[in-house]
Amino acid sequence: MKTIKIKSPGTVANLVCGFDILGLALNEPADWMELSLLDKPEVIIYNRDNYNLPTDPEKNVAGVVLLSIIEKMGEDIGFSLSVEKHIKPGSGIGSSAASAAGAAVAANQLLGNIFTNEELVQFAMNGEKLASGVKHADNIAPCIYGGVTLIRSIHPLDIVSIPAPDMFVTVVHPQIEIRTADARQILKQQVSLKDAIKQWGNIAGLVTGFMKGDYELIGRSLEDVIIEPVRSILIPGFEELKGKCKEAGALGGGISGSGPSVFMLSKNETIARDVESVMRDIYNRIGIKYNTYVTTINNKGIEIL
Amino acid sequence: MKTIKIKSPGTVANLVCGFDILGLALNEPADWMELSLLDKPEVIIYNRDNYNLPTDPEKNVAGVVLLSIIEKMGEDIGFSLSVEKHIKPGSGIGSSAASAAGAAVAANQLLGNIFTNEELVQFAMNGEKLASGVKHADNIAPCIYGGVTLIRSIHPLDIVSIPAPDMFVTVVHPQIEIRTADARQILKQQVSLKDAIKQWGNIAGLVTGFMKGDYELIGRSLEDVIIEPVRSILIPGFEELKGKCKEAGALGGGISGSGPSVFMLSKNETIARDVESVMRDIYNRIGIKYNTYVTTINNKGIEIL
Repeated sequence: MKTIKIKSPGTVANLVCGFDILGLALNEPADWMELSLLDKPEVIIYNRDNYNLPTDPEKNVAGVVLLSIIEKMGEDIGFSLSVEKHIKPGSGIGSSAASAAGAAVAANQLLGNIFTNEELVQFAMNGEKLASGVKHADNIAPCIYGGVTLIRSIHPLDIVSIPAPDMFVTVVHPQIEIRTADARQILKQQVSLKDAIKQWGNIAGLVTGFMKGDYELIGRSLEDVIIEPVRSILIPGFEELKGKCKEAGALGGGISGSGPSVFMLSKNETIARDVESVMRDIYNRIGIKYNTYVTTINNKGIEIL
Repeated sequence: MKTIKIKSPGTVANLVCGFDILGLALNEPADWMELSLLDKPEVIIYNRDNYNLPTDPEKNVAGVVLLSIIEKMGEDIGFSLSVEKHIKPGSGIGSSAASAAGAAVAANQLLGNIFTNEELVQFAMNGEKLASGVKHADNIAPCIYGGVTLIRSIHPLDIVSIPAPDMFVTVVHPQIEIRTADARQILKQQVSLKDAIKQWGNIAGLVTGFMKGDYELIGRSLEDVIIEPVRSILIPGFEELKGKCKEAGALGGGISGSGPSVFMLSKNETIARDVESVMRDIYNRIGIKYNTYVTTINNKGIEIL
């Protein structure tokens, strides 16, 4: 029985001013998955963690991705999947994307790498559809491609890797629940042209800063005048957190995905650890349970082990 | 009497999806200016062309810039300016910016280069204020810096040069009048979040395409879903023009500044000349007088001769 092991990383989507178009991959946390090829069209799922995710493949994010691959192949193949999740579902750092993209990449490897990365993103978006109701690629793309990725367009799919300098990422996951659907619903469907112009100035600055390795420009451009002012009210302590993290030396940051996790980018590990202390102090004081991660940008994406 | 001669180039602002934030400098057309330093606080203007622009410095774009420099210096200095404009006023390719930026750069050279480029942009914006009622920098910045420039923010001023590959620019100036104020007035002050997201995806794609030298990505990103659909109705034949220029091989393009000029970017001169033929055919048929230019991106900006 052909078997493969992979490591599928967490990701930060909605990269500040890059709502719906920019994401990056993290080195930690990451899910571990083991996938085997079967000779009949079925999907069997074993969960090796305590998250109690569904094992019915039609209700499981990785499951629906594998089912869509079986359907596409039109052959007598199936998969047995064993999952050990470390990215908490609902944390806002791409837990469902790690499952969906990981399943697609592992299956492709077992099948002899017959699909392009873009096709893998298409398969994996079926998992995102199940998880959040929307086919979005801003977690899946960085998960598969690694690094910072731009989803210039979904229809047609147009994914572009953006070179970025080394950066440290500090993430805090306050253990409150924000449903992605709710986080979408509170957004205003109309924005002022003035704010939109500010936002695309910042997007252009951020991309230029990444590609030039200009940390100061990255810092100046990490500003979101449209989504963050609305969504941040769902995250206790957000304004104080952001302000104090920047005082501690962070380049900037914001809500990861649709929250509740918040991430900050820093030039080096010392600052990233100081930022972590700030985050801990604030959530200790507020009295909300939390996890923190200090990690780096993952330029490889999903790893075949 | 200290005298200096400069060549101040035309520019394309509102670079398709980069409304209000992205511009580029052209090699042709360009204005010629000769500036002399005087020893009393006055500005004398001589027009060496047929555009009948005001010679009263308070009503002249270059004049107000020179007055603002005299005021800043607080010394007994003045300027005598002789201008030979080749960039038609009202053409939408930065005629007022060439005058304003040219005056600032020439004066700075005469004064021993005491101002930074950012300060020169600030002085020159006084000229844009006189010309269009708004202090904007998206023509002035590329005029002074050369190449493709991003104005990430006006307050505070944040100008970033964006490296771009060699490209040819074909410009057609249909000889109709569009007032910048009118072109601003018809814009919708609210845009849908959906369109704004498309736009910032394209901006990010365009900047990445420039910096990677990826012509295909540049082409795919040259799409404006917000401003062009509104403003293009002021330009006869716009839709047909754009479609046929792209069929002829242009990467893409759009309205230059607030029009009426339209520009197209091409990978090489052969395509740029074919695009020019398409433009000529259309305006010959419609029966509107026009000028065309086939030129390249000017990476030097204003030249001291």
